[in-house]
Amino acid sequence: MDSLNDLKEKMRRFVVERDWQRHQSPKNLVMALTGEVGELVEHFQWMAEDESREIDGERKRAVAREMADVLIYLTRIADELGIDLVAAAHEKCDDNDRKYPKDKFRGEYRRPDQY
Amino acid sequence: MDSLNDLKEKMRRFVVERDWQRHQSPKNLVMALTGEVGELVEHFQWMAEDESREIDGERKRAVAREMADVLIYLTRIADELGIDLVAAAHEKCDDNDRKYPKDKFRGEYRRPDQY
Amino acid sequence: MDSLNDLKEKMRRFVVERDWQRHQSPKNLVMALTGEVGELVEHFQWMAEDESREIDGERKRAVAREMADVLIYLTRIADELGIDLVAAAHEKCDDNDRKYPKDKFRGEYRRPDQY
Amino acid sequence: MDSLNDLKEKMRRFVVERDWQRHQSPKNLVMALTGEVGELVEHFQWMAEDESREIDGERKRAVAREMADVLIYLTRIADELGIDLVAAAHEKCDDNDRKYPKDKFRGEYRRPDQY
Repeated sequence: MDSLNDLKEKMRRFVVERDWQRHQSPKNLVMALTGEVGELVEHFQWMAEDESREIDGERKRAVAREMADVLIYLTRIADELGIDLVAAAHEKCDDNDRKYPKDKFRGEYRRPDQY
Repeated sequence: MDSLNDLKEKMRRFVVERDWQRHQSPKNLVMALTGEVGELVEHFQWMAEDESREIDGERKRAVAREMADVLIYLTRIADELGIDLVAAAHEKCDDNDRKYPKDKFRGEYRRPDQY
Repeated sequence: MDSLNDLKEKMRRFVVERDWQRHQSPKNLVMALTGEVGELVEHFQWMAEDESREIDGERKRAVAREMADVLIYLTRIADELGIDLVAAAHEKCDDNDRKYPKDKFRGEYRRPDQY
Repeated sequence: MDSLNDLKEKMRRFVVERDWQRHQSPKNLVMALTGEVGELVEHFQWMAEDESREIDGERKRAVAREMADVLIYLTRIADELGIDLVAAAHEKCDDNDRKYPKDKFRGEYRRPDQY
């Protein structure tokens, strides 16, 4: 049940059944993704870092729903552009492995670089 | 090769091997996600909508890499919080199916509502 | 009435009167800014470009309120960090003038470069 | 030197001199704003909260430049839409004063509500 392909197919059918394709250009979908990320951020903005590690109950369910929205739009964009999202992520992981050799970066964290 | 589980495991190992867990609180990871989404948006901001449907070549590869970064951080947050991302997305899809019945919403699009 | 100084003073007083300073670290305020920008984006995500040039009435008032929130948080961050926001913007404008000479860039637009 | 009007005029002239108006629809400008906010966030994502209160030197100058970009795009959007940004922010402040009476909210902070 962790397949993104099923999700992609389900969402594509959802959009086609409502005839919403013409609204869902990659440009617009990227904006919609941004909006959902904004809603996700709102849950964390006043939290202490430690607190953010321990959310549960209703808050956790609400966060899961916002993250679901982000994944849904990300999957839609990838489908519209013909991008294999999971393959791209694995490639990026392998790049990161080379860029940040574990022996050299152990315990070190360069800001504001992102891995 | 479309499994998010493998990606999750790979990323967790990447972080543990470098001893970066203490930096990767959900709060910080949500910020990192935001930064990556910003980089994704930059590719689309001056594009016409139609143009955004037809990107290819080097631009498409660059967009795929930014989307990979978004997925990687999203997967990291889900792992830290113990959220099953794909299950949450399927649930949200089913909610959307009920919220926007296809007979009623065919061809209609309520702005700024998101599906 | 276009002074940011008055706004800065008003917001600082607002925060102090409620004893909210300890929540309003620059890190947290940057997240709050992101959330407000997400709400602003949601108004524009399904709009055509031309449509976005002509919003008015209730939609325009709602957009103005979201933009106000963005400006308020931006002003709060600048106040907390001791940054003169308007001076920084003028400096950036002058840099842009040098970086994009008007004779060379007339009619041209390099994507995804931002001015 | 804290006037947003001067900044607005300067930016409008900048855009007109390069004949960039047709690219600068409010929709596109909102996306450009998002991109700049993403760059601002990247400075803060791995910082501890306390650390974010004490940035200075080169980091502070870089943050000021990102904030300048955010203000520039915000000013551009307001100009294109005919919105008086500072007046809107003062109105919002007054709304907040009523919504969060200082006697009732002193020391209290409701998450994820934003003021």
